[in-house]
Amino acid sequence: MRTFGHANDVTAKKVKEGIEMRVLVWSGKLMMTHVSFKKGSVGDLHSHPHEQISYIVEGEFLYTVGEKKYHMEAGGAIYVPSNVKHQVEALTDGVLLDVFTPIREDYLPQ
Amino acid sequence: MRTFGHANDVTAKKVKEGIEMRVLVWSGKLMMTHVSFKKGSVGDLHSHPHEQISYIVEGEFLYTVGEKKYHMEAGGAIYVPSNVKHQVEALTDGVLLDVFTPIREDYLPQ
Repeated sequence: MRTFGHANDVTAKKVKEGIEMRVLVWSGKLMMTHVSFKKGSVGDLHSHPHEQISYIVEGEFLYTVGEKKYHMEAGGAIYVPSNVKHQVEALTDGVLLDVFTPIREDYLPQ
Repeated sequence: MRTFGHANDVTAKKVKEGIEMRVLVWSGKLMMTHVSFKKGSVGDLHSHPHEQISYIVEGEFLYTVGEKKYHMEAGGAIYVPSNVKHQVEALTDGVLLDVFTPIREDYLPQ
């Protein structure tokens, strides 16, 4: 677990071209990640059993959850249910937070 | 539940002088709230069985968890365990997010 963290101090992991993830804090049944995107980068369409909330810190994103698409800007949040496919496209450079319950074991530092 | 929300569109509830809360989204076992503070405002010391992560969006805060105090700035996150007393003091005007699992039933719109 890490119970206190700042985006500037946490090592970034390259997810794919233009997308970097930092696992800020995790413990118990909660994890928060910080993900930065270059304009035009697109996350893979994926799903997981974990419930998720994403919050847009900076920039604009096109967020797909199931069959619906959402235009999202800084200050906006969205809930992703367990096992529903979702994807995010960065319309500008941007940053979002992903919060998960339970924690993503696959994101823990090795 | 509300699965998509923006701070500009959600009605604020006055928590106490200088502190306003917006419940952005909630469903299943996750809830995210957006809380704005005027400089100098201090939340009540409190605890709850819910696990919590707070993330600083803007400003500087002094965050107390149990016996420890943390100076927090935008980009920083902190985990609060179940039933541990915590409190936040706004050192500047600021905004933070509180994420809970399970959802805070006491925060649901009446």
